Amino acid sequence: MKVYNPDFKSRVEKYLQRQEFMKHIGFNLDVIEAGRTEGKLTLEKKHLQQKGYAHGGLVATLADITAGFAAYTLVPDDHNVVTGEIKVSYFQPGIGQELHVKGWVIKPGRKINFCEAEVWCTNHDRKTLIAKATASMVTIFPEDTKR
Amino acid sequence: MKVYNPDFKSRVEKYLQRQEFMKHIGFNLDVIEAGRTEGKLTLEKKHLQQKGYAHGGLVATLADITAGFAAYTLVPDDHNVVTGEIKVSYFQPGIGQELHVKGWVIKPGRKINFCEAEVWCTNHDRKTLIAKATASMVTIFPEDTKR
Amino acid sequence: MKVYNPDFKSRVEKYLQRQEFMKHIGFNLDVIEAGRTEGKLTLEKKHLQQKGYAHGGLVATLADITAGFAAYTLVPDDHNVVTGEIKVSYFQPGIGQELHVKGWVIKPGRKINFCEAEVWCTNHDRKTLIAKATASMVTIFPEDTKR
Amino acid sequence: MKVYNPDFKSRVEKYLQRQEFMKHIGFNLDVIEAGRTEGKLTLEKKHLQQKGYAHGGLVATLADITAGFAAYTLVPDDHNVVTGEIKVSYFQPGIGQELHVKGWVIKPGRKINFCEAEVWCTNHDRKTLIAKATASMVTIFPEDTKR
Repeated sequence: MKVYNPDFKSRVEKYLQRQEFMKHIGFNLDVIEAGRTEGKLTLEKKHLQQKGYAHGGLVATLADITAGFAAYTLVPDDHNVVTGEIKVSYFQPGIGQELHVKGWVIKPGRKINFCEAEVWCTNHDRKTLIAKATASMVTIFPEDTKR
Repeated sequence: MKVYNPDFKSRVEKYLQRQEFMKHIGFNLDVIEAGRTEGKLTLEKKHLQQKGYAHGGLVATLADITAGFAAYTLVPDDHNVVTGEIKVSYFQPGIGQELHVKGWVIKPGRKINFCEAEVWCTNHDRKTLIAKATASMVTIFPEDTKR
Repeated sequence: MKVYNPDFKSRVEKYLQRQEFMKHIGFNLDVIEAGRTEGKLTLEKKHLQQKGYAHGGLVATLADITAGFAAYTLVPDDHNVVTGEIKVSYFQPGIGQELHVKGWVIKPGRKINFCEAEVWCTNHDRKTLIAKATASMVTIFPEDTKR
Repeated sequence: MKVYNPDFKSRVEKYLQRQEFMKHIGFNLDVIEAGRTEGKLTLEKKHLQQKGYAHGGLVATLADITAGFAAYTLVPDDHNVVTGEIKVSYFQPGIGQELHVKGWVIKPGRKINFCEAEVWCTNHDRKTLIAKATASMVTIFPEDTKR
């Protein structure tokens, strides 16, 4: 995929430091490549819903973060990315110790990067795909913010 | 809408106390009616993304919670509800002091309650619709969990 | 809603004449207002799926057409509109004699018009909401097509 | 994937003969496997929208058909399948001579088969992924229809 900003990794890392909600959740990215990011989250009590499963909103948040930053890796340095829409399908309850989240650009584009994300849950020695997301990540051009 | 459990409000309130992720975020419901819930969130630094806007994952989480509990008000006491899928469209960046979230069942059903949710952001004296969600809330029957 | 092309109705009508797939289906618009269109379809055998209900693809097509042309009414004359994505939720099987479809822009925007659409089915004297759609209608600028 | 009806292919073929809307469009399935179907469509004038591209509603219809019948291959003979919801993302305009559509079950389940579909367009010697869909295909149990 075409990369406009060869220094995309530093840019994403800078933004991660300012991602207050992500830090509040305790998530971080450990893979930042062109058109692709990944991260892991150790499940704690604070992440759960009333039945003891990983909260659906948590799962949606992690999918949004990995997909959104995957789009960020492909845009020029003076452009930004916002989520236009995201759909998350929940295949299984998230029961286990760790979530592994992968986001990627499936169709790059100047105005919209179409992205997908997968959320896997590790329960002891078994890893299950618990959710999948599709999203339209909209590029914000420098001239958009001057309006 | 048909209510199978007249005591739905106590049930939802009991679940709210166990909603660890919701408590971690600082959200709560102040309206719990048949087929409808609402809640408010005071925006703090921990809720923001790198640009200082309310995080998209936060917005998705609040939409999921209000829509999911709206579905809960309509199911029998021994039934449960899980999110099958949710789509969130982001209309505006969430800039302001408070989010007001409304979730409701638009089409009740035995197996699926189709729901919608709106997220409004108050910035001083102006209230803006910043996101809207649609979701399929799937009913879990007692016999499902015995499998 | 802001209208850039006061002659939007003529433009939409011109496009309707070239909408071969819409004509093949037998649908037409009878309301074309700023940010809103509506149309009706008399259900015939050719519109049905294997159980005798209105085909889900037909329902999605009508939602896409009304929502897309609702967006068209708001863009400048030298701009175009394409569907970025659409989600359709099916509430009820479409059993009856006529479909009534309404599409509108819920949040106008320079680059994306967020739209919704409803599909109602009339069965003798009863009218039921059988499906609802949400869509991102993407504006194509003159400079986009020069690339 | 677990198959409850070993004779699923005959069942799907029987339904295809009754799919009036599919026949009206001119589409047919040429691959019917457990959890997967595929089909091709020769693009004609009747399939196009006002700009001469394959109509978005057509694309959504073909995605719905292949995903829905993929789900049908996995359910017992006395069960049925309806589309609960489908989201289609449009990556590219459909310009060419033929569409190739693939639908599959990504996560089988007793009540919901989560499905995906891809629509490819062949333009002379180049084949492009023009759209991707995700859908919740809901199983209708024999007892559901007795209500």
